[in-house]
Amino acid sequence: MAARNVVVAQSGGPSPVINSSLRGVAETCRAFPQTFGTVYAGFHGIEGVLKEELLDLSAQPAEEIALLRTTPAAGAIGTCRYKLKAHQEEDFERTIEVFKAHDIGFFFYNGGNDSMDTAHKVGQLAGERGLDLVAVGVPKTIDNDVGDSEFKLIDHTPGYGSVARYWACIVQNAFEENRGACPSDPVLVLQAMGRKIGFIPAAARLADPHREQSLQIYIPEAGLNLAALADKVNDQLKERGCVVVVVSEGLDVGEIGASKDSFGHTQFSASQITVGQVVVNYLNEVGLAARGSARGQVPGTDQRDTAIYASTVDLDEAYQVGQKAALIARDEGTGWMSTLLRKPGTIYGVDYGKVALEEVANSERHFPKAWIDPSGVDVTDDFVAYARPLIGEDWPSVPLVNGLQRFARLKPLFAEQKCAQYVPQAHR
Amino acid sequence: MAARNVVVAQSGGPSPVINSSLRGVAETCRAFPQTFGTVYAGFHGIEGVLKEELLDLSAQPAEEIALLRTTPAAGAIGTCRYKLKAHQEEDFERTIEVFKAHDIGFFFYNGGNDSMDTAHKVGQLAGERGLDLVAVGVPKTIDNDVGDSEFKLIDHTPGYGSVARYWACIVQNAFEENRGACPSDPVLVLQAMGRKIGFIPAAARLADPHREQSLQIYIPEAGLNLAALADKVNDQLKERGCVVVVVSEGLDVGEIGASKDSFGHTQFSASQITVGQVVVNYLNEVGLAARGSARGQVPGTDQRDTAIYASTVDLDEAYQVGQKAALIARDEGTGWMSTLLRKPGTIYGVDYGKVALEEVANSERHFPKAWIDPSGVDVTDDFVAYARPLIGEDWPSVPLVNGLQRFARLKPLFAEQKCAQYVPQAHR
Repeated sequence: MAARNVVVAQSGGPSPVINSSLRGVAETCRAFPQTFGTVYAGFHGIEGVLKEELLDLSAQPAEEIALLRTTPAAGAIGTCRYKLKAHQEEDFERTIEVFKAHDIGFFFYNGGNDSMDTAHKVGQLAGERGLDLVAVGVPKTIDNDVGDSEFKLIDHTPGYGSVARYWACIVQNAFEENRGACPSDPVLVLQAMGRKIGFIPAAARLADPHREQSLQIYIPEAGLNLAALADKVNDQLKERGCVVVVVSEGLDVGEIGASKDSFGHTQFSASQITVGQVVVNYLNEVGLAARGSARGQVPGTDQRDTAIYASTVDLDEAYQVGQKAALIARDEGTGWMSTLLRKPGTIYGVDYGKVALEEVANSERHFPKAWIDPSGVDVTDDFVAYARPLIGEDWPSVPLVNGLQRFARLKPLFAEQKCAQYVPQAHR
Repeated sequence: MAARNVVVAQSGGPSPVINSSLRGVAETCRAFPQTFGTVYAGFHGIEGVLKEELLDLSAQPAEEIALLRTTPAAGAIGTCRYKLKAHQEEDFERTIEVFKAHDIGFFFYNGGNDSMDTAHKVGQLAGERGLDLVAVGVPKTIDNDVGDSEFKLIDHTPGYGSVARYWACIVQNAFEENRGACPSDPVLVLQAMGRKIGFIPAAARLADPHREQSLQIYIPEAGLNLAALADKVNDQLKERGCVVVVVSEGLDVGEIGASKDSFGHTQFSASQITVGQVVVNYLNEVGLAARGSARGQVPGTDQRDTAIYASTVDLDEAYQVGQKAALIARDEGTGWMSTLLRKPGTIYGVDYGKVALEEVANSERHFPKAWIDPSGVDVTDDFVAYARPLIGEDWPSVPLVNGLQRFARLKPLFAEQKCAQYVPQAHR
């Protein structure tokens, strides 16, 4: 059988390791030229497929593909918030048209639950339309909310370990700031990503696993309101004099005027006031038990874009789920997502495997209730045991040239357009 | 002459290299035991002196002192926002009393203009009260606003180079996020520190010295209002499709409800709404030329607290101004601040020297008007030539132990208290 061409694309928010998965797919496809032909990237996700903007990865210098390892975020091939909703039939048909025009036999989609749903549907429709297409998903989300709450479909999603490491490190930094600034500015409020799911703010505990510093963590699942938060902060101030307060962006603090993206997800980074700011203002208004004021930090998207805070464990795992996806496509066919499952026992390690796209698409992971400390402002040692291995042991080697980070720079080499122009349905 | 004891203290906001200066003072004093006796740190600045809380640095393990190099912020010995104002005569007298009680012959004060004023006044009063005290200042401020606008008193302040490097790197990260997120979220707004002085936001240009990316920089000195900003952002969107917008925390956007610290400085990190948020909201309200929304980041104090983004040039220079301060104290006597001046010519290098405390105390540095690009949304190549050497070429080596940053941990060894208890005047 002749080699068939490949489209790989990304969806949703990026991560520090999303490009490692891209590299894993691209390099593994290159290694099997009898199976895989030209590897194209959908430029800005499925939107790039709809617009027939296919970036030729096979024509890129191998060095630039290798540099994807330490290139954070999605600037290399772009991502999108565009969703192929069930009723957007023209979009689905267009996808098949573009794939047929370029002899695409393999479609890799890197994303979360929604993206696995899209990959699944595209794979199904291709079959109905007589296109022999292998659709395989690659897991990604910093929020760690892909899969199930029993960690049976996937242990953790690539991306999470790096953002967890970011929080471990910057909360360490915040301890130094906070202790240094006492007593005049005793409260430092840091807002973490993760939507309504507490995995990211929970990672702040990794900064201080033995609870030597003064830290409180507010995750949405603990259900504390602003008044309870202020009471607990003031109690902590009486005891310790200062405190670092990590709050989830998804904490319920009333109206924050957040907009929705096209997946229907709240887009906290575009809200009119941040949760962190609401907390800072509330604390300053009710007055603090210690003299001085509360101050705020909203690192925003930088937490998912920093190369130097990436976890080397996460970088390796992200590469290998990409690699595994290519191997699944070659050896096992369509309808799967590559996954990683923790080996049993106390020594950390993972096995790579596959789960059905459909199963992932319909799953939803929550932060385990058992990992919330009874105080409501901390997480348990079981969470620490789960998350600690994910942040690794080393700084990654991020190359610097002329004082700046040397990120991958892909050339704008696109496949020749063969289809009529097309405006994605949701943009009409 | 017998060796006399030493007090070193810090004031104001910290930096990633403030502890390098502390180490420079401490290790240099250790190297000359015939001149310098026990080295104490005023715990939390001059407040620690007033309260007779003197941390014994001489009793600390040499390894912990060495680890100060890569320990950011002021958690090691603390800082303060407490100012010895001219009318607080009791505070001044108390300072002399404590110094006399501990045979303090040398006082090193690390800070900005206000701190140099304090050091100067303490030195003067000591003389009047019969205490032979050598008072020497150590320059520090991330804002780079110490000294004069002609760079004759000091070329740049230790701390600035590291925060400049932080901005060079995270704006690089933001480019990756921003290009990846186009077209759905075309505007990313990042708020930089620096009060009303533009040096820190200006450093964003170092991320892209050849102007290949889409970046606009709004410094207070350019004087653009919100409406002009929105026009310029929209013009840029029409041309480039996306843009990273770096705004100063001190941009004039109307009421942000910022409180004042005890120096009378606006404390932006405790304001009720940030400048970055005002800009995000305004852009989203007036509507963007491109589809999608503006998103915001307020890294806050993390920009001055990150060890890994510290500049190795800055780390070395910070150490050496501390070292130089000790040498000045030993060889040249009281009333000076150690300084660094750029060598003439195109090859970067600095000479260490001294300037009178009084001269620094009365000086004020502004961002040179000639370095503002006529567009009002950029800085010139002359600024880049000035700032580029300060960020260095390498990542610093920040030790990790068990996955976490290994920061200096000083033991709570305090000098025996010999004076009566005292409540600082401003706290009564």
